[in-house]
Amino acid sequence: MSGQPILFSWPARVYYQHTDAGGVVFHGDYLNFMEAARAEMLRAMGFDVGELARRDRIVFVVHSLQVSYHRPARLGDALEVTVKCLKVGGARLVLEQAVKRGGQTLVSAQLTLACVHALEQRPLPIPKVIKDAFERGTPAAAGT
Amino acid sequence: MSGQPILFSWPARVYYQHTDAGGVVFHGDYLNFMEAARAEMLRAMGFDVGELARRDRIVFVVHSLQVSYHRPARLGDALEVTVKCLKVGGARLVLEQAVKRGGQTLVSAQLTLACVHALEQRPLPIPKVIKDAFERGTPAAAGT
Amino acid sequence: MSGQPILFSWPARVYYQHTDAGGVVFHGDYLNFMEAARAEMLRAMGFDVGELARRDRIVFVVHSLQVSYHRPARLGDALEVTVKCLKVGGARLVLEQAVKRGGQTLVSAQLTLACVHALEQRPLPIPKVIKDAFERGTPAAAGT
Amino acid sequence: MSGQPILFSWPARVYYQHTDAGGVVFHGDYLNFMEAARAEMLRAMGFDVGELARRDRIVFVVHSLQVSYHRPARLGDALEVTVKCLKVGGARLVLEQAVKRGGQTLVSAQLTLACVHALEQRPLPIPKVIKDAFERGTPAAAGT
Repeated sequence: MSGQPILFSWPARVYYQHTDAGGVVFHGDYLNFMEAARAEMLRAMGFDVGELARRDRIVFVVHSLQVSYHRPARLGDALEVTVKCLKVGGARLVLEQAVKRGGQTLVSAQLTLACVHALEQRPLPIPKVIKDAFERGTPAAAGT
Repeated sequence: MSGQPILFSWPARVYYQHTDAGGVVFHGDYLNFMEAARAEMLRAMGFDVGELARRDRIVFVVHSLQVSYHRPARLGDALEVTVKCLKVGGARLVLEQAVKRGGQTLVSAQLTLACVHALEQRPLPIPKVIKDAFERGTPAAAGT
Repeated sequence: MSGQPILFSWPARVYYQHTDAGGVVFHGDYLNFMEAARAEMLRAMGFDVGELARRDRIVFVVHSLQVSYHRPARLGDALEVTVKCLKVGGARLVLEQAVKRGGQTLVSAQLTLACVHALEQRPLPIPKVIKDAFERGTPAAAGT
Repeated sequence: MSGQPILFSWPARVYYQHTDAGGVVFHGDYLNFMEAARAEMLRAMGFDVGELARRDRIVFVVHSLQVSYHRPARLGDALEVTVKCLKVGGARLVLEQAVKRGGQTLVSAQLTLACVHALEQRPLPIPKVIKDAFERGTPAAAGT
């Protein structure tokens, strides 16, 4: 885990749709929890993913990711999903995310996101107002 | 829609994972929003779906459902998911649920749930404390 | 179940992502099996859902559905998903679908689909070549 | 990509439930395609994931993964999902997987899987019959 401060935190709850026959959260569903936290982080910064896509034609797509699964989350668990910003480049963001339960890290991840045109999927520079927002940090970490 | 009062209401937000290439929420994902609202309703009544399953061996499974799709929800939309209780029987619950946006009903549904044993899947009578909670109503509608 | 002949049949296998902590297939995932069977039925008739959406701007959206869950499917089960055509109207299709295991019906459903414009979501008449294909039936039921 | 031979290959088709409002496959859904290919590889080796879990109390859980997204898959695409075996350890498997379309790699991944007890989630040695099967390779690559 990097020494960066937590930029944003968002709560999640484990429902039946997130679990599998192993009795725990399916490994792919943690990506949904992380996607939700990123969307809410953008919203806390003043940007709505729907408006970014439809009005500004901007989408942040996942370019690569690494996930480590330390302990399983179970049905009914209250989770906290955190986001740290490791790097804001010209057209890419590198984020570190974690899924925690009661302060214990269950899953940790690093993701590289690319800013692309919503229709043509060609790379776009990250808009300055979004870069600035990442550098400023969110007004307040939600869900904490 | 029945004339029953709304028993519970829970907010939801549309993220990329809920949408499809049609640009709107995939029809199956509304069932996830409704499942979340039922789990949170039980929690507001004092029952955790995880503890019910693991400790009490009680699961509420969907026996049948009807869904009508009136208007599509889009990426970024803030939704409200409501639950009305139409009937609490010996081993079954009949609920009416709706997914709304700004007071407008996007999707409406009726579901019959059966109380079953978590491991053996045989029918169980709904525990009296849960029946009583449905008859009393939740302490307060969340998310409103 | 209607007396209509089975128009199409498609195999499915239950993987971890389809199951939940109850140890069986999550109720919402049967809608995914049914969606797959409808897409493959269209393909067997000569229509690709991707091309219909991108080139012809035609999408079949679910307008309403009813599902009855009779018996649960489990991890590893081999399923068969069937489609019967109950009605082909001007802009709507009424289909009956079932999910079976070894000839036993686990889940049965009736769905009304509406033909809409891919971008504007306004109703469209079902193209004559598609109506004709439904009336003719598929060249052969796949997966059987 | 490693120089190991492809151990197994399995076809997949992109349906609406795999796509998102970006018009392409949601990044998390590639994990489902890869999970399906691993289950079918085990089946081709003579092992059913359902029986392994219920009868032998053996589950292969994802311990860590890395995914690189090179090009997006679209609605209707015919995909091929491959598996290479990089290492069979005492209690862990290291696999390389790819999702391809017409020979072009869209997504590549490396996964470490741990063999655990289905109920207690403690590490288990990989059964010798399964280790042998990996060393022997599958009888035939399916879907090719």
